[in-house]
Amino acid sequence: MPRYKLLIEYDGAPFVGWQVQDQGASVQGTLMAAIEAFCGERVKVQGAGRTDTGVHALGQVAHIDLAKDWAEDTVRDALTAQLRPHPVAVLAAEKVPDAFDARFSARARHYLYRIVNRRADLALERGRAWRLPRPLDEAAMASAARHLVGRYDFTTFRHVDCQAKSPVKTLNRLDVTRRGDDIRITVSARSFLHSQVRSMVGALVLVGEGRWSADDLAAARDARDRAACAPVAPPEGLYLVRVDY
Amino acid sequence: MPRYKLLIEYDGAPFVGWQVQDQGASVQGTLMAAIEAFCGERVKVQGAGRTDTGVHALGQVAHIDLAKDWAEDTVRDALTAQLRPHPVAVLAAEKVPDAFDARFSARARHYLYRIVNRRADLALERGRAWRLPRPLDEAAMASAARHLVGRYDFTTFRHVDCQAKSPVKTLNRLDVTRRGDDIRITVSARSFLHSQVRSMVGALVLVGEGRWSADDLAAARDARDRAACAPVAPPEGLYLVRVDY
Repeated sequence: MPRYKLLIEYDGAPFVGWQVQDQGASVQGTLMAAIEAFCGERVKVQGAGRTDTGVHALGQVAHIDLAKDWAEDTVRDALTAQLRPHPVAVLAAEKVPDAFDARFSARARHYLYRIVNRRADLALERGRAWRLPRPLDEAAMASAARHLVGRYDFTTFRHVDCQAKSPVKTLNRLDVTRRGDDIRITVSARSFLHSQVRSMVGALVLVGEGRWSADDLAAARDARDRAACAPVAPPEGLYLVRVDY
Repeated sequence: MPRYKLLIEYDGAPFVGWQVQDQGASVQGTLMAAIEAFCGERVKVQGAGRTDTGVHALGQVAHIDLAKDWAEDTVRDALTAQLRPHPVAVLAAEKVPDAFDARFSARARHYLYRIVNRRADLALERGRAWRLPRPLDEAAMASAARHLVGRYDFTTFRHVDCQAKSPVKTLNRLDVTRRGDDIRITVSARSFLHSQVRSMVGALVLVGEGRWSADDLAAARDARDRAACAPVAPPEGLYLVRVDY
């Protein structure tokens, strides 16, 4: 019973998120239906990260076990065909050992958050970034971001529904760069709490607008209190970019 | 009667193109309606380039004459508000001398054509690039592209409905670069014939697929015959990026 590692891209807009829910279309459920249409099997699709409603993926990873030993390219092309017209694409399918687990074998997850800092509405990038009209000081954001890199109790930046056993996580990277109106926040860790990236982005935006100092950000972190968090950034700017194993 | 230069971004998908047509929504007509809603004036919007149905713009330029002397930022913000929910945004409005003409003062126009060279369908970039599954040799494309740079009779690469007086144009730049699956073709000239960029991209793709040699491309050029052209590339990969004055 071969195990396949799938590399998956999707537009999060039409989905309730990665995970199957009682109501609404999920990416996981859409993939399960495509697999069933391809080979008749109803299998579990184990993803590396449970992206929220509206969050995109450039490189989500999942694993599936199939009864038949299909060629890797057959799995990729058949799923691509069955996924139409949904905005979900299987970029690659690779046979992996049974010990591989898309969720638990992951060594690092990399996210990108995109902000477009301009007055005008988004035309081409609508639904692909968070537009913010007030000028953001990206240098202040980059500097303050250093207060979140390292091993901390991230309770302030954790959704109240988060199911993780511990609020302590180690953030390996949180970079803020700007090119013209385009601000990119790149963040890496072994794993994240629920809504952690969008909560941290919301706080960094307050810093960028001059409403919080870097010390305010550090104080919010140390409060270990969800009430100390800034407004959470919207999902359309967030991308799961890559998962390392 | 002040003249304003507008910098405009749009998603070409829902439009019949830049120019007002008998049927269907045009970018020009959408802008005219937004201007009328803003200040009550029905004015002509003169664009730098008449993009075709489905072609995008990151930096289209147009000029308008208004009766009242509005602040530049007021024009930009009011048009942005009136353009909602259409995927058209006015990035900047600038007062210019009456001698400025968006079309005739242009010194150079810069286009980008985006190809994604992969088997899987596009999920996030759907409608934003041309997906081509066969592996393309971008080095061969870049090399062959040199046969189109310079002053030539581009009749082969000209739409049969093209209204330009002469088929002779000077191409200043035609570069092909690849980063991963992403192939970008950047092209610059003072002006272009109707469908010229997409016709040239179609020919370069035949070179990239190994179906045409660089000499075949030069021969097609020298044929000065529309029948010698390759299939024209689809509009969703084309962007008017910038106009220089």
